[in-house]
Amino acid sequence: MTASETDDRLSAQFAFLNEADRLKSVLRATTLVDGSRRENSGEHSWHLALYAMTLADQADPAVKIDRVIRMLLLHDLVEIDVGDVPIHSKGGTAHGSTDTQEAEAKAADRIFGLLPPDLAAEFRALWDEFEAAETPDALFAKSLDRVQPVMANLMSGGGTWVEYEVTSEQLDQRVGSKIAKGAPRLWDWVRAKTRAWFEP
Amino acid sequence: MTASETDDRLSAQFAFLNEADRLKSVLRATTLVDGSRRENSGEHSWHLALYAMTLADQADPAVKIDRVIRMLLLHDLVEIDVGDVPIHSKGGTAHGSTDTQEAEAKAADRIFGLLPPDLAAEFRALWDEFEAAETPDALFAKSLDRVQPVMANLMSGGGTWVEYEVTSEQLDQRVGSKIAKGAPRLWDWVRAKTRAWFEP
Repeated sequence: MTASETDDRLSAQFAFLNEADRLKSVLRATTLVDGSRRENSGEHSWHLALYAMTLADQADPAVKIDRVIRMLLLHDLVEIDVGDVPIHSKGGTAHGSTDTQEAEAKAADRIFGLLPPDLAAEFRALWDEFEAAETPDALFAKSLDRVQPVMANLMSGGGTWVEYEVTSEQLDQRVGSKIAKGAPRLWDWVRAKTRAWFEP
Repeated sequence: MTASETDDRLSAQFAFLNEADRLKSVLRATTLVDGSRRENSGEHSWHLALYAMTLADQADPAVKIDRVIRMLLLHDLVEIDVGDVPIHSKGGTAHGSTDTQEAEAKAADRIFGLLPPDLAAEFRALWDEFEAAETPDALFAKSLDRVQPVMANLMSGGGTWVEYEVTSEQLDQRVGSKIAKGAPRLWDWVRAKTRAWFEP
């Protein structure tokens, strides 16, 4: 690679990294564990990657944790353009809507498109795999993405369950079923704690 | 593992993950790229892990990027107890002081000590390796930890360089020398941009 090619490549890498910084300004519905403020999607992505490191023994043996970590680091970048769509908003239907999926795919085109072509393809493939939620790695990553807000709600006195008037059945359906797919024992343990909250 | 042992293990894993949440409330001297507010150490850790994924080709071939990512996810957890120590504070001397290092080691004992023993040992070893800054993985992780605030300052009009009246020589000494150790070509490129800022 010539010096000029290295310059161009670094310019593209930093165009992406500087744009990614905006994820720190995207607010989620969930609060911090101490309830002091809403969580942003940048720090949420860090926390999830730490979840993957810490809860690796809850994954299927086929899961490659380092790929899960990379997926989780990238998974919310599209929210820079689209914003966070809370799982319990619009009666639990907004999150998987076709409109949202189309907007997120367009955002992925733009944001990963800032990178040099090889990295753009690599990161986009990881994000597509996460979104498709079919491989063991993606299913475990999705489980963690669903379990972390449950813990935040439990720790902060109900959080978005109170705000969106969520029932324990809705939690099972919208959240628990997805946690159980990638981390069944983890959901058993967390579910018992949510029962104690919903039916004190 | 019996059901009761799994319960105890998950309790310890979540004691750590819930405690880690507090890193989102530790503020750094550096601002976001858009200058809108100070960055917290949780979102900073996410951004650095993304730096490692994106700038992997700037590392020595011996560097294992997935270990670097794990180090960076953990590297600032001690700030939950100790707070962030800005690199340019107290004339650039506070960061490496014996007092700071002792306080951080004590914080690492407490925070990693929340985990089950096997994970506590694994995470502590990664943190110790990062702090010692001797292995290729740690040196590259340290380079990224130093280069990210430089980019934030460049993007936001000077940031902590203005606040702490930093000269270009001090930047070379406190920051550049450490970036160059783990990522020499990266520092060459970034340094040229800082020269244009310091000597417009």
